[in-house]
Amino acid sequence: METVITGKDCEVKFGLDLPTVIIAERINPTGRKALAEELKQGKLDMVKEDAKAQAQAGAEIIDINVGAVGVDEVDLLPKAVKAVMEVVPNPICIDSSNPKALAAAMEVCPYKVLINSVTGEEKSMEEMMPLVKESGSALVCLACDDAGIPNEVEKRLEIAKKIIDKADSLGIKREDLVFDCLVMTNSTDSNSGKVTLETMRRLTSEYGVATTMGASNISFGMPNRDLLNIHFITMSIINGLCAPITDPLIEGLRPAMRAADFLAGRDPYGMKYITDYRK
Amino acid sequence: METVITGKDCEVKFGLDLPTVIIAERINPTGRKALAEELKQGKLDMVKEDAKAQAQAGAEIIDINVGAVGVDEVDLLPKAVKAVMEVVPNPICIDSSNPKALAAAMEVCPYKVLINSVTGEEKSMEEMMPLVKESGSALVCLACDDAGIPNEVEKRLEIAKKIIDKADSLGIKREDLVFDCLVMTNSTDSNSGKVTLETMRRLTSEYGVATTMGASNISFGMPNRDLLNIHFITMSIINGLCAPITDPLIEGLRPAMRAADFLAGRDPYGMKYITDYRK
Repeated sequence: METVITGKDCEVKFGLDLPTVIIAERINPTGRKALAEELKQGKLDMVKEDAKAQAQAGAEIIDINVGAVGVDEVDLLPKAVKAVMEVVPNPICIDSSNPKALAAAMEVCPYKVLINSVTGEEKSMEEMMPLVKESGSALVCLACDDAGIPNEVEKRLEIAKKIIDKADSLGIKREDLVFDCLVMTNSTDSNSGKVTLETMRRLTSEYGVATTMGASNISFGMPNRDLLNIHFITMSIINGLCAPITDPLIEGLRPAMRAADFLAGRDPYGMKYITDYRK
Repeated sequence: METVITGKDCEVKFGLDLPTVIIAERINPTGRKALAEELKQGKLDMVKEDAKAQAQAGAEIIDINVGAVGVDEVDLLPKAVKAVMEVVPNPICIDSSNPKALAAAMEVCPYKVLINSVTGEEKSMEEMMPLVKESGSALVCLACDDAGIPNEVEKRLEIAKKIIDKADSLGIKREDLVFDCLVMTNSTDSNSGKVTLETMRRLTSEYGVATTMGASNISFGMPNRDLLNIHFITMSIINGLCAPITDPLIEGLRPAMRAADFLAGRDPYGMKYITDYRK
């Protein structure tokens, strides 16, 4: 099973047996004051710069999130999508909790996008899934619901199963679902990493679905966060991670991902590992 | 369940929920011509230097293997064990395929050692296990037998089960068995890493036994082998690796292991990770 997202004259495939691809996370005002300020003023220069830098660093898919206080996402999200398409050909992940903003953004993009995201809440599934079905997009699915993010592997799997069943009933293809098993901070609960990894391992082995993950939560509050994030991605790759949402500019991330893909049997003969090494 | 090995005024514990410990691999003439030459001449200067350097680099246990062509192991192995005990207090792993050499080496060491190794062959179990039982040592158990190293997870598990049953029947404690799930070269068979990791995951979750592993085979024939070895150890730590046999002088190995322990929930609140980081 392969998930395909398209851009200008290009497509990106990912799946359990394929090399890991990066969904670039930097176009997101959370924790980035300067970007939040620009977006509030309707400026998209930094968005364009981030798109270029991340594509240059090897990110395959560009996530676009403009959700800052004082921003009208329905107006700005389509503009940001257009701005990114002007400067890079990469496939796009449209990231918003506002269904109207997502619909408006999808209208300006002629390619197959990844929509970020739906949860197991009835309201969320009812809002997002028809949009995804109609447009033939792919969909990031979070293993949480009205009650929040469960601490137990079984409960996260139950929510994922509910989302799969709902998508099945609407005729959304299984390969267009991309599950986020959710990463919590490991410094406050040493079990957090294991719960995410075990959920991912079971979900992918039982349903064969693709996965994504925002790795960086794992290292919150700890020194040398990049080292922790890189090694958590390595552990995730052997447990079924397909397309992490991360910062491609992190030093050492790509060689580590290529190493992990090779070790996980997802890069036969290490062709990609060796090619990257020689660059 | 915890495995305990002792040295002069010290003990080293390892197990599935504990931080990973290093069994230092450098005192081994395989692939080290200068060391092989010294050992042939009965010289132990390099053995002592290696012991000191590896203990200094943070290795908890020192493996001692003097098996080179032209060496009488029954004579030299006990001498090498004494030489190492003279310079470092660390617990020792005595490594030989010659049971007489192992018996002679155990006689000169007053501590609880790790014996490396037994296989699933009847002959090997009959030679090694009484020695281990009598001395109260711990034992490295290889998941292979007369027919070699199986490619299939199930078959490696069957051999491991046979060794566990035999040890049980002799009254050897389960915590004194340390399984090596065996690492083959990934560049010739992209499935090799996965087979080792899956064997380790199943063996540890089904029997709770401790594990060891010689990681470096995985990267044979590839560029930047240290990167591959480090990330394979990270993947192994989330799958139940307790005490890898490796070179503690590899740059970046220890911080990566501390990161992996923290992420795998084996270093509560990251105390060891943070302590090492501050050094």
